[in-house]
Amino acid sequence: MAQSAKRIVLVSRPVGEPKASDFRVEDCAIPAPGEGQVLLRTIWLSLDPYMRGRMSDGPSYAAPVPIGGVMEGGTVSEVIASNNPGFAKGDIVLSRAGWQTHALSDGKGLAKIDPKLAPISTAVGVLGMPGMTAYTGLLDIGKPQAGETVVVAAASGAVGSAVGQIAKIKGARAVGIAGGKDKCDYVKKELGFDECLDHRDPNLAAKLKEACPKGIDVYFENVGGAVFEAVFPLLNAFARIPVCGLIAHYNDTEATAPKWASALMRNVLTKRLTIRGFIVSDFAARHGDFLRDMSQWVREGKVKHREFVTEGLDSAPAAFMGLLKGANFGKQLVRVGPDKA
Amino acid sequence: MAQSAKRIVLVSRPVGEPKASDFRVEDCAIPAPGEGQVLLRTIWLSLDPYMRGRMSDGPSYAAPVPIGGVMEGGTVSEVIASNNPGFAKGDIVLSRAGWQTHALSDGKGLAKIDPKLAPISTAVGVLGMPGMTAYTGLLDIGKPQAGETVVVAAASGAVGSAVGQIAKIKGARAVGIAGGKDKCDYVKKELGFDECLDHRDPNLAAKLKEACPKGIDVYFENVGGAVFEAVFPLLNAFARIPVCGLIAHYNDTEATAPKWASALMRNVLTKRLTIRGFIVSDFAARHGDFLRDMSQWVREGKVKHREFVTEGLDSAPAAFMGLLKGANFGKQLVRVGPDKA
Repeated sequence: MAQSAKRIVLVSRPVGEPKASDFRVEDCAIPAPGEGQVLLRTIWLSLDPYMRGRMSDGPSYAAPVPIGGVMEGGTVSEVIASNNPGFAKGDIVLSRAGWQTHALSDGKGLAKIDPKLAPISTAVGVLGMPGMTAYTGLLDIGKPQAGETVVVAAASGAVGSAVGQIAKIKGARAVGIAGGKDKCDYVKKELGFDECLDHRDPNLAAKLKEACPKGIDVYFENVGGAVFEAVFPLLNAFARIPVCGLIAHYNDTEATAPKWASALMRNVLTKRLTIRGFIVSDFAARHGDFLRDMSQWVREGKVKHREFVTEGLDSAPAAFMGLLKGANFGKQLVRVGPDKA
Repeated sequence: MAQSAKRIVLVSRPVGEPKASDFRVEDCAIPAPGEGQVLLRTIWLSLDPYMRGRMSDGPSYAAPVPIGGVMEGGTVSEVIASNNPGFAKGDIVLSRAGWQTHALSDGKGLAKIDPKLAPISTAVGVLGMPGMTAYTGLLDIGKPQAGETVVVAAASGAVGSAVGQIAKIKGARAVGIAGGKDKCDYVKKELGFDECLDHRDPNLAAKLKEACPKGIDVYFENVGGAVFEAVFPLLNAFARIPVCGLIAHYNDTEATAPKWASALMRNVLTKRLTIRGFIVSDFAARHGDFLRDMSQWVREGKVKHREFVTEGLDSAPAAFMGLLKGANFGKQLVRVGPDKA
């Protein structure tokens, strides 16, 4: 066991893109678990775009991380000491321990992970929050029907890759958007999307129209920006738009009206569109369905996934800054500690 | 029986507000029904905001009225001659005969009205399309829960008045917006809304905030414009916005980005909003439920309604122009012919 702990705290609220100086790595003592508590050792830290929201104090669905507070985040952790009868030393758990090597917990909100069922890192990936975001947003809001067209951006990422593959399982046409040729090739050839376009392509709108000859029935919105501009005119009557993220706007320092703004509500009406924001916890009741279906699809090779790992807790700030720019290729993880201490 | 017929045709596509010269009243012979046809005499013509859309040739959910064509519209008509075994002389039917005194029909799309059950004019009002628009949009999309707050504009009109009264039946707080003191008084005192505000009030936003101390859970959108500007910041998490009309924008000649534009999608996400456009025919399967519930509520006095009648087919263009400005007070009808010829 390491003799001391480390944590990363938020030093200042980023203006625009987060920068290294917005974070600080602190050394501290490994805490001792009190009565009813467990001591957790972080193995995997998940980095996800929503964390940008937690760095700001604007109104949102969750409170911001306080200045000086440990950055929030989902982790896969090992119980290394336990005063809680519900957990034993050696248990692997899903936790929200945050950006730190060690954390205390009273056991609430911890979920045990069975390492025999799947690699434990998938508990924060394809079998965890990102996978379930894709599953519930696509199936419960998007409701793709066979023969319909589903478009999703960040298509090589943790959420987008699952969205397109589930769309294929449901018999829909899946069109992805990703950054650069390598990612597009992967999305099309490895993940089996029907088409994948580069969001940096100056002719994105025209190419998207070509890739969606029957229009767009479901647009899974996780980016906003230029992608939605290109999608908007192609939306079919009764199209559904689950909105789970707007990564293109997370660093916006001023709000500007998008091109579609003046036409949005008129199109909502004349095309009978459904636009619905959600976060994964809104569908907590679907967790059992998700785990059953998604683990089966992963076992059968129908849903593939890819991890992008940076080493050591110290790498988290830079990795997160990269994530907002699409520097990752697959689910962004930080390897904070070894599988076995 | 009148010896000749009259019809009103669209002469030109209005730019901005429709004007008298966009329409022409034409005299014509009463047509003779061919095989399988019935001859209809119009008693009531319904005027509704959606008709503004039919005058334009922009993309919409329905084809525009062709230049020189008879203006579309729902009517309550009497069968005055029948070569169709499904209909007898004297039958009263709901039809889409349009802005004319007489029309032929092959019987398709006609629905018989039983004059014993309710005044026949209600078939194009509270028990017809406007009532069902309120019923389905509010209940199937808005889904108001007891204790929630529902806001609707054009609250003294055919749709808005039903929305607020159904909201009250479901135990919600109903806040209306209408034009002028008389309408507001009627909405509050006669219809039993909890509050009604004048949309011309320069302090609308502040007054609306006061009238909705717990925020807004359902905004039934039928107007757009300044009302939605005032509503937008008050929307609660998980608010639902059924969109059935945008009357404030129907005469827009240029599209300008509304104030909420740059913040819309971010709010959709952080507040988990649902925005969904619909037209009443999307819920055709609910017609039986609607008729059962609404006729009961009308009988019990729980849903009151008010008609605003202009006399004679010739009055239709001016009445329609007035409707777009809120000159009507209640459901706008044109008395085209007497109940009994």
